[in-house]
Amino acid sequence: MVSIREEDVKIPLDVPLSARATYLKNYMEITRGSGRLMLFAGDQKVEHLNDDFFGEGIPEDDNDPEHLFRIAARSKIGVFATQLGLIARYGMDYPDVPYLVKVNSKSNLVETEQMDPFSNLWYDAEQVAEFRDNSGLKILGVGYTIYLGSEFEADMLNQAAQLIYESHRYGLITVLWIYPRGAAVADEKDPHLIAGATGVGATLNADFVKVNYPKKEGQKSEEIFKEAVMAAGRTKVVCAGGSSDECEPFLKKLYKQIHVSGAQGNATGRNIHQKPLDEAIRTCNAIYAITVEDASVEEAMKIYQGK
Amino acid sequence: MVSIREEDVKIPLDVPLSARATYLKNYMEITRGSGRLMLFAGDQKVEHLNDDFFGEGIPEDDNDPEHLFRIAARSKIGVFATQLGLIARYGMDYPDVPYLVKVNSKSNLVETEQMDPFSNLWYDAEQVAEFRDNSGLKILGVGYTIYLGSEFEADMLNQAAQLIYESHRYGLITVLWIYPRGAAVADEKDPHLIAGATGVGATLNADFVKVNYPKKEGQKSEEIFKEAVMAAGRTKVVCAGGSSDECEPFLKKLYKQIHVSGAQGNATGRNIHQKPLDEAIRTCNAIYAITVEDASVEEAMKIYQGK
Amino acid sequence: MVSIREEDVKIPLDVPLSARATYLKNYMEITRGSGRLMLFAGDQKVEHLNDDFFGEGIPEDDNDPEHLFRIAARSKIGVFATQLGLIARYGMDYPDVPYLVKVNSKSNLVETEQMDPFSNLWYDAEQVAEFRDNSGLKILGVGYTIYLGSEFEADMLNQAAQLIYESHRYGLITVLWIYPRGAAVADEKDPHLIAGATGVGATLNADFVKVNYPKKEGQKSEEIFKEAVMAAGRTKVVCAGGSSDECEPFLKKLYKQIHVSGAQGNATGRNIHQKPLDEAIRTCNAIYAITVEDASVEEAMKIYQGK
Amino acid sequence: MVSIREEDVKIPLDVPLSARATYLKNYMEITRGSGRLMLFAGDQKVEHLNDDFFGEGIPEDDNDPEHLFRIAARSKIGVFATQLGLIARYGMDYPDVPYLVKVNSKSNLVETEQMDPFSNLWYDAEQVAEFRDNSGLKILGVGYTIYLGSEFEADMLNQAAQLIYESHRYGLITVLWIYPRGAAVADEKDPHLIAGATGVGATLNADFVKVNYPKKEGQKSEEIFKEAVMAAGRTKVVCAGGSSDECEPFLKKLYKQIHVSGAQGNATGRNIHQKPLDEAIRTCNAIYAITVEDASVEEAMKIYQGK
Amino acid sequence: MVSIREEDVKIPLDVPLSARATYLKNYMEITRGSGRLMLFAGDQKVEHLNDDFFGEGIPEDDNDPEHLFRIAARSKIGVFATQLGLIARYGMDYPDVPYLVKVNSKSNLVETEQMDPFSNLWYDAEQVAEFRDNSGLKILGVGYTIYLGSEFEADMLNQAAQLIYESHRYGLITVLWIYPRGAAVADEKDPHLIAGATGVGATLNADFVKVNYPKKEGQKSEEIFKEAVMAAGRTKVVCAGGSSDECEPFLKKLYKQIHVSGAQGNATGRNIHQKPLDEAIRTCNAIYAITVEDASVEEAMKIYQGK
Repeated sequence: MVSIREEDVKIPLDVPLSARATYLKNYMEITRGSGRLMLFAGDQKVEHLNDDFFGEGIPEDDNDPEHLFRIAARSKIGVFATQLGLIARYGMDYPDVPYLVKVNSKSNLVETEQMDPFSNLWYDAEQVAEFRDNSGLKILGVGYTIYLGSEFEADMLNQAAQLIYESHRYGLITVLWIYPRGAAVADEKDPHLIAGATGVGATLNADFVKVNYPKKEGQKSEEIFKEAVMAAGRTKVVCAGGSSDECEPFLKKLYKQIHVSGAQGNATGRNIHQKPLDEAIRTCNAIYAITVEDASVEEAMKIYQGK
Repeated sequence: MVSIREEDVKIPLDVPLSARATYLKNYMEITRGSGRLMLFAGDQKVEHLNDDFFGEGIPEDDNDPEHLFRIAARSKIGVFATQLGLIARYGMDYPDVPYLVKVNSKSNLVETEQMDPFSNLWYDAEQVAEFRDNSGLKILGVGYTIYLGSEFEADMLNQAAQLIYESHRYGLITVLWIYPRGAAVADEKDPHLIAGATGVGATLNADFVKVNYPKKEGQKSEEIFKEAVMAAGRTKVVCAGGSSDECEPFLKKLYKQIHVSGAQGNATGRNIHQKPLDEAIRTCNAIYAITVEDASVEEAMKIYQGK
Repeated sequence: MVSIREEDVKIPLDVPLSARATYLKNYMEITRGSGRLMLFAGDQKVEHLNDDFFGEGIPEDDNDPEHLFRIAARSKIGVFATQLGLIARYGMDYPDVPYLVKVNSKSNLVETEQMDPFSNLWYDAEQVAEFRDNSGLKILGVGYTIYLGSEFEADMLNQAAQLIYESHRYGLITVLWIYPRGAAVADEKDPHLIAGATGVGATLNADFVKVNYPKKEGQKSEEIFKEAVMAAGRTKVVCAGGSSDECEPFLKKLYKQIHVSGAQGNATGRNIHQKPLDEAIRTCNAIYAITVEDASVEEAMKIYQGK
Repeated sequence: MVSIREEDVKIPLDVPLSARATYLKNYMEITRGSGRLMLFAGDQKVEHLNDDFFGEGIPEDDNDPEHLFRIAARSKIGVFATQLGLIARYGMDYPDVPYLVKVNSKSNLVETEQMDPFSNLWYDAEQVAEFRDNSGLKILGVGYTIYLGSEFEADMLNQAAQLIYESHRYGLITVLWIYPRGAAVADEKDPHLIAGATGVGATLNADFVKVNYPKKEGQKSEEIFKEAVMAAGRTKVVCAGGSSDECEPFLKKLYKQIHVSGAQGNATGRNIHQKPLDEAIRTCNAIYAITVEDASVEEAMKIYQGK
Repeated sequence: MVSIREEDVKIPLDVPLSARATYLKNYMEITRGSGRLMLFAGDQKVEHLNDDFFGEGIPEDDNDPEHLFRIAARSKIGVFATQLGLIARYGMDYPDVPYLVKVNSKSNLVETEQMDPFSNLWYDAEQVAEFRDNSGLKILGVGYTIYLGSEFEADMLNQAAQLIYESHRYGLITVLWIYPRGAAVADEKDPHLIAGATGVGATLNADFVKVNYPKKEGQKSEEIFKEAVMAAGRTKVVCAGGSSDECEPFLKKLYKQIHVSGAQGNATGRNIHQKPLDEAIRTCNAIYAITVEDASVEEAMKIYQGK
């Protein structure tokens, strides 16, 4: 099991003195003392509407939003990321789950061909902090998506900068999802472009930046991903889980992201919740083992297989 | 008659401690203690201009806005939803009606072919709460319409999120009308898309979400509607009444929405107010019987027939 | 002479307790105790630039803005509506005129073919109330124009709702000018559409709504206008005077608007100020006689003729 | 020399009691007690970039911004209008110059064929007043440009109305530059259109409105300009100097604007600063003589010639 | 070594009395008492994404953002300009570096052919000042980019004016990057246009304005640049370093900018950081020698060569 010491955490300097203890506590908690982030992503009800929750190959459980909370509560995770509304509805029954509020979202109805993407802020940092205090829940952080290269990039860069600056005032940990997308973007998975994205995350002062795993003909993703991890500097890079995969290759991919590319965690959604509860929990725990407990793929597979 | 106990109401966690009693009282009152919502919708004077109130087949009464208040006052309803202006003008003579303020509206003049729909906020939650306090009326909640898939979706998601968050601070019950509409939307009644809409309502923390009844060639609407009801989780789904129908098939439809699909109420407008006062009242009471009093269609028809 | 009693005035419920006496006083004064509004409209210097004030058939007097004030001061009127700037410049010499501040205006240079109309707010209600208090003038109300069906309808509905809500807090009487206009509007004078417009005025809580007089092939305007008057409910409908007419047919039209259609007043501009001062005053008084003093057309014509 | 008495100044009624003495003092000072305004316009560094300051026929002096201040300090002028930045940089060395802050500006790069013009606010009235107080300079007023007929007219009318209303609260004198411009404007110098522009200035409560001198085939400009002067009512009209002219015809034009058309001053820039310092000063003084000292053209020419 | 005296610094008059000492101290420090600015530009991680930090011919070091801080800490510089996020992440380890916060940035993904450029504000002056106070770092100033001639010029002029006015309230030194760019701009390096840009910087009250070095067929850049330096008046002009050059010609260019054109410094990024640490430091020191220490090219080259 990897672990960091509190004194090794570099608290960003926009966190005011009065919020440093909270930031540190949240940082240790969200990484479970490992410095790595295992983020269970459950924000797709807006991003993909009901496509990820109902349909062929998806267990019926998944259409009930509570499925996400059941998984989050019974698995090992770093944090469960979803919209404030769901947390407000289920949090009273799942008070021990560590939450991250995803504060912007858009549906997938308007495609990039029609209009470049813009995901607008739903709540500001002050409201999230107020919600944390009113609810008594373990709200550890906030998340925001930027579509880099969109014609609305200017709006999202401004919102992200403001959100992070203000969230740090409340000691909240900040995660940016940065996806190059729009008429100007030819190849969303280009490793050099993704390194640009993680670099932007660093300039915006994100604690973690989640990007897509790069792909390039004839190259190993874990190798070409190194550029992005390094370009982010002290902002830690986590990788999107993407669409549903078989478990073993998926865990291998995660392992390499961490141990070859230098990623500091992952953000996984569909690969977890598009399974029946028990299997979802075992998947979560396997991912957690690799990410936080520094397990090998074999050890993680045993967890997945319930051995 | 169905009924819920106060202690069973899951008060969303963004309702601050100081507003929990008000929220609970409003929730019990708007559902008449049943947990189900019978919403009498009277916001069409903007949405459809005068088309729903004057013309062939519409009784002359309906052209006077007071017709809506007469119905609301003399019938059994959960809540009467209309614009603040009308409530401010007639409320002094109808002080016992439970009101919901519809805070955004647009006319139907600009069609989707010309421009994607945007329905803009007229009042914020603070003003509605102030109006409630100044007027002394029973303002129980607020309503807001989102056109999902519109090019202006980003504005409406932001306004809805803010409205609900702030309304909950005042203990107000929140109802979202969510209609997929815009150049990007091919089939507004697609059941899977409507399930997406109710899911978005849940992420936005709506207490109730009103959607159109899905339709799909060769399928029973009450069956395919289940996806949407489940996808909404703890946000309750109510169904739009749609255009004027014969009473019996209409009541049968409502009955199935509740007892087959699992809907928790309905929102009916034209099917009520496009009738002379006495018949409108009997229609209201019949709908209420099915929704709140758990009556059968036969019992409801007797009420409608004044037997 | 018609008259209403103070206790019959339905004060809208968004007027807070502290402003009810002011509202009532303003209401009685603007209607001169009749419940009917004679509004002398002098806002065309922006709407039509100098077209209404200088040119063939227009007396030279009219090019001096003071002409409007001379008329307003020496005639019987309910209220003189114009922009704040003119009131601020001439009010010190015409302190007894009752004023209404028209708070949005646009020029006629950009035509609907080029871009749908948007008339933007110049001042908010707080500034108008402050101006009232600082100037000591009899500022009784505010006016705002909505172009219903414009692609900018959403902005104007929001501004109108806010203006009325806030103006009522200061006891100001509110008048909406609602004109369907834009690429989506085929027939601006369609009676059913105009009834839609007055209905929107009611939902927005306007005290008075000014619309164009409907026209329909083969129908009497005074008959088809009834739909709009009724659709407005307790919001009173006044009719735009339109372009310059001969006096007698104009007065007959006004008379019918009130006595056949049920309108509660009129808003007249060019038919008054495009005349030399003395004739303008007599025209004003004649209109006032019909509107407020319940005179017949013959009696009004005598006033016009100075008999 | 013409002169007005303090008691003859009509202080607009939006100037609050507490600012009336400041307004009056500023008004007397900006008109040098004459009621007429000689405005030295030095805002072209944004409007025309460096075109007016460097190039063939322009003395080298003019490329140094201090040239403007040297002229302003050593000549007789009513007020020197330029951007806040220049005043902040040179004011300490030119403390006796009377200044007017031009608060919006745009470059000439984007032409009307590409996009209708919008000149955005740089500072609000509160900041100008604060700058006045912090700097200790004689900031007498503010200026703002409106492009009437632009597709962005709505924004500029709103900004102008707000600026004037708020500036009057601080006793500042307000000058509007109003130029019809945009795809909708066929003839920017049409006398009737310019009369529309001055009328708009009056409705906006400008103390002075600066317009272009009208031109019409076969008509004398000084005659056709009368319409605009009268249409402005109590708002005083000053005429733009336009591009560089020979001095005598230029002075004759100014003389006629005042004595034939009824203009109350002028705003001159390039005709002054595109000259070496000494000649610029003599030009200024000649213009001042006609405007403020009521000199004849001959007398002014002697001043220009340094006789 | 050139030097200025504190009493020779013209503190702009929008700096309030309470902030004058801070402004003066910052001014002396940012110019190292020379009146000239050597700005080490490290904001390209957004502007050019990862293109400037990784790829052929770029040393691997450069992909780690800390490379910039290492250079800044070990070299002689006037100020290191970068985004707040990076300063917040590395400042604790580099507390002696003088910083300038670049408060707007955009990526290079959307090209001018697709849409005119808009670089939106990330933080306002109050937040920068708060960050300065919370972090205890030597934050000496702020920077902002304007794309003159863009269709979004109006937004950027407004943001720049506000930023400078508010930053001066906190005693911060202000630097504008002004680049003509957009569909309307044919030749971004035209000397006359660049003189327009520096003039705009002066009207906006920038302490320093950074522009591209002009180019014109058959003319010496150092000669044609004089127009721009003079047009800026008391606002000092610094020149962008541009893309990577051989060191000697680069230093010669800088030397001429200062000694022939009259520039007061330079802003150099890629020419510094696209080198291994040791060489980068020597490059920095060589540039500093020319800029601040008034060295000759030969002296500077010796520094670069480590002799």
